[in-house]
Amino acid sequence: MKPPIIIVNFKAYETSYGKRGLEMAKILEKVSIETSTEIIISVPATMISRLAQEVTIPVYAQHVDGVSEGAHTGAVTPEHIKDAGARGSLLNHSEKRVRMDELDDALKRMKKLGLESVICVDRYELVAPMGLLKPGAVLVEPPELIGSGVSVSKARPEVITNAVNEIRKVEDVYLIAGAGITTGEDVYVAIKLGSDGFGVASAVMKAKDPQKVIQDLVLNAIRAMEEK
Amino acid sequence: MKPPIIIVNFKAYETSYGKRGLEMAKILEKVSIETSTEIIISVPATMISRLAQEVTIPVYAQHVDGVSEGAHTGAVTPEHIKDAGARGSLLNHSEKRVRMDELDDALKRMKKLGLESVICVDRYELVAPMGLLKPGAVLVEPPELIGSGVSVSKARPEVITNAVNEIRKVEDVYLIAGAGITTGEDVYVAIKLGSDGFGVASAVMKAKDPQKVIQDLVLNAIRAMEEK
Amino acid sequence: MKPPIIIVNFKAYETSYGKRGLEMAKILEKVSIETSTEIIISVPATMISRLAQEVTIPVYAQHVDGVSEGAHTGAVTPEHIKDAGARGSLLNHSEKRVRMDELDDALKRMKKLGLESVICVDRYELVAPMGLLKPGAVLVEPPELIGSGVSVSKARPEVITNAVNEIRKVEDVYLIAGAGITTGEDVYVAIKLGSDGFGVASAVMKAKDPQKVIQDLVLNAIRAMEEK
Amino acid sequence: MKPPIIIVNFKAYETSYGKRGLEMAKILEKVSIETSTEIIISVPATMISRLAQEVTIPVYAQHVDGVSEGAHTGAVTPEHIKDAGARGSLLNHSEKRVRMDELDDALKRMKKLGLESVICVDRYELVAPMGLLKPGAVLVEPPELIGSGVSVSKARPEVITNAVNEIRKVEDVYLIAGAGITTGEDVYVAIKLGSDGFGVASAVMKAKDPQKVIQDLVLNAIRAMEEK
Repeated sequence: MKPPIIIVNFKAYETSYGKRGLEMAKILEKVSIETSTEIIISVPATMISRLAQEVTIPVYAQHVDGVSEGAHTGAVTPEHIKDAGARGSLLNHSEKRVRMDELDDALKRMKKLGLESVICVDRYELVAPMGLLKPGAVLVEPPELIGSGVSVSKARPEVITNAVNEIRKVEDVYLIAGAGITTGEDVYVAIKLGSDGFGVASAVMKAKDPQKVIQDLVLNAIRAMEEK
Repeated sequence: MKPPIIIVNFKAYETSYGKRGLEMAKILEKVSIETSTEIIISVPATMISRLAQEVTIPVYAQHVDGVSEGAHTGAVTPEHIKDAGARGSLLNHSEKRVRMDELDDALKRMKKLGLESVICVDRYELVAPMGLLKPGAVLVEPPELIGSGVSVSKARPEVITNAVNEIRKVEDVYLIAGAGITTGEDVYVAIKLGSDGFGVASAVMKAKDPQKVIQDLVLNAIRAMEEK
Repeated sequence: MKPPIIIVNFKAYETSYGKRGLEMAKILEKVSIETSTEIIISVPATMISRLAQEVTIPVYAQHVDGVSEGAHTGAVTPEHIKDAGARGSLLNHSEKRVRMDELDDALKRMKKLGLESVICVDRYELVAPMGLLKPGAVLVEPPELIGSGVSVSKARPEVITNAVNEIRKVEDVYLIAGAGITTGEDVYVAIKLGSDGFGVASAVMKAKDPQKVIQDLVLNAIRAMEEK
Repeated sequence: MKPPIIIVNFKAYETSYGKRGLEMAKILEKVSIETSTEIIISVPATMISRLAQEVTIPVYAQHVDGVSEGAHTGAVTPEHIKDAGARGSLLNHSEKRVRMDELDDALKRMKKLGLESVICVDRYELVAPMGLLKPGAVLVEPPELIGSGVSVSKARPEVITNAVNEIRKVEDVYLIAGAGITTGEDVYVAIKLGSDGFGVASAVMKAKDPQKVIQDLVLNAIRAMEEK
């Protein structure tokens, strides 16, 4: 991972799978190449292998269970996602929360396998505790703003500011801001406030013209990084 | 589904993914063709698309969430597994239990999409209640015998007998027996006691010679069916 | 339990505990005596013993875990609530859902101890499956109407009608309707549609004059029962 | 809380409730008075009010939900346990694990109400992260030793040593050791290794002579504290 860290969470939107999921990934790959940035896509478990074969941008899982090989019916394990071509995974998203012991189990396996990790938290108070588990990054997202179209940058900039202060208590962990990120301005503010990147989902996945939206977000991320 | 229903649950065993997962699927396909039976494989979410492309036997998911398209990070949805090539899914396995309202949500989506379904239960008392939700089959498995090498047929045949009585209270739902199924005799007894098939995992997945093991199981299933 | 079955769920409202909880219980006891009906109160675990000593109306728990004596830190067991003076418990409320195997475990213990049970469901399709577990009653409550002030009787009467049809498939289990019950008319309609009683929470617990509200509900329940 | 911190977790043992629960509490109170130590008892939710009235030693809940007043059927809230007479609560016991956001919610409410808190963790790696949430103490217990009769002090002393190092990273949070604590020697070692107290359950709750057992544990705790 290298700032600006850009994560597009496919969730389970209509555009997250099948032909439309592939099209979306191709669009994001195109913008990634044109802007010389890395755009991480976080995709459904069933799509990892297909997308990892079809695009050159990094593919993440959206969740991974803290178990290894064995009798774990229904589990998506670190081994499974790595084998499918994932480079890492989101963990503890507000829509898929996990206990801390399970997170620690998952992270230990992931590190052994060389997988990257982004732990999501719903409040700045959890940034340092989760940071102590040494994921690649912590993504802070006030859940009431997720999918709202009103960004954390506008509605609750203090969450980013506080989260940035908290992440400084641990070493070598990036801080990413998310929730309601819709416009280039949202991204610009988030990074100027100290975050190392941004996460986005509905604003891209449900856009009529996703290419235009992501371009605007990425270009503003670059602009904010350069001004730092 | 058509008796004898044969389900091999890959779980998250070493042989469940990657090259070894593919080899296992190929072996099972071979036995399926040779014996003119249908062998269903229940595989990790990340493996569905690859195996569905590589083998002709039906591929199931091991779990599916009761949500549809939308903001569901980390979910494996009915749409996802169908798109990946699955013909159906296990639900409510002892290693991945689900609330009944979620089961009902999942089944409703799955039926709309034409997906098959097998609900697992840990006791015969739940066979009829789950049967009322109208899955394709109910798979009864006393959890203390799962992976034990001691089969339900030997250790607790009354579970099968009672389950068979229970399934008769609902129409058009098959009854499958599982847990500790290891030998052809286990399968033979399970079907003679009235079950419509069997589920197996470790005995095949961890076998030195999986082909030999599954052949023995399948041939005994056929023999028991013929004697009915 | 005897129709009309009347359950007031204290939840965790301000009026659910301490001095106000006791006052509420006393008011409900008064109306119970005046109307010669049985009003069941479903109270926080910490309040069971105090209320069971102070009032003569039946006290229920709001939830009970499906475990017995042993190493179960944080569990509220059937033995615990019985010892505290409870006559029974709600199970599987929309705000405290439980898996079906856990429900079955809890019910088996509760029956041994002579405890009554009311399983809540969020849709009519689960009435018969849950009824097969043989609780004393099934309480159907569309969750989107809970606490809304818009009653199931008005907004979704077909849920009650369908639930009544479903409960007939099992013997000796009552059907109770709930969600948004606010006025005597709501109760009257629910019972006329075939339910054996009603459940109420916010309309009583948050009322300025709870006595007046519950009187109206109870009197309409009696009127509807008499017209049956 | 003041070292040596002594917590007896009643769990749901036969001796946790009713007349036997009261007897157990009285025995522990007696030893507390005789030894001039504080013995905290962690009891079932249904027993809090009765025990808080009958004994002078501090009564804790075994779990508390991270919700406040409102529509939370089946919840045991901070307000509920305080009203019942509890002085604090265990949180996140291995038998009742909780997500970190829920823990933070619970702690914030508890602090407002002046309730004490002890967060349990199953490994030393979680001591500092949980310590950052600022509970009164963190109790480290390797789950495989809980109830085993083989103590953490003997079988895995490095867990205590590492946990003691971890707790130093946060201020004003005590470190308690637990799991398999059976003899005075177990307690002595645990405190000499740096812990501020100990937690015990089965060794006392299932003892033929609980008074003798707890006396031995407490006296060794005092001896170890004096030698520090």
